[in-house]
Amino acid sequence: MLAYVNEEAFKKTIKTGKAHYWSRSRKSLWLKGESSGNVQEIKEILVDCDADTIIYKVKQNGDAACHLGYDSCFFRKVDGNSLKIIGKRIFNPEDVYK
Amino acid sequence: MLAYVNEEAFKKTIKTGKAHYWSRSRKSLWLKGESSGNVQEIKEILVDCDADTIIYKVKQNGDAACHLGYDSCFFRKVDGNSLKIIGKRIFNPEDVYK
Repeated sequence: MLAYVNEEAFKKTIKTGKAHYWSRSRKSLWLKGESSGNVQEIKEILVDCDADTIIYKVKQNGDAACHLGYDSCFFRKVDGNSLKIIGKRIFNPEDVYK
Repeated sequence: MLAYVNEEAFKKTIKTGKAHYWSRSRKSLWLKGESSGNVQEIKEILVDCDADTIIYKVKQNGDAACHLGYDSCFFRKVDGNSLKIIGKRIFNPEDVYK
């Protein structure tokens, strides 16, 4: 998944060991998994060359990172002129987000 | 590495099989590796759930993706209050970008 992190989210992530992001639409701190329970336990945080992008390496609880129920948000690949689903569906969103 | 892709860069990538990006600072199409020779051969392109982020899975020629000469732009990890280099230095940028 790709999401936005601000200083508050970064500090909260370091402090708690759980991945936090900043929701720009809701303008609020976002603990990933707060609705689904699928929190991400931080294993390592990598920083890129110009220090404007980070990678959270995590243990994904519940095995699903995507709000659509897939293991990863990147569950489709370009296949000619269409997209082919290659991800694993872990849950049905209708069962999780009520 | 994280970089920007517009429609032109995406189409050129599909057509050539080599990773292209769009340089927002230079306002021009950017063939990754055009200076260093370290082009990226596309193996697969993944698309995320809301279709605003893609992953190029590539064979990285020259083994270095980062302009600082490391295998990856994410060559540092958070280590307490500092950053620790964990990436592999493949080349010296001064030798490559002249």
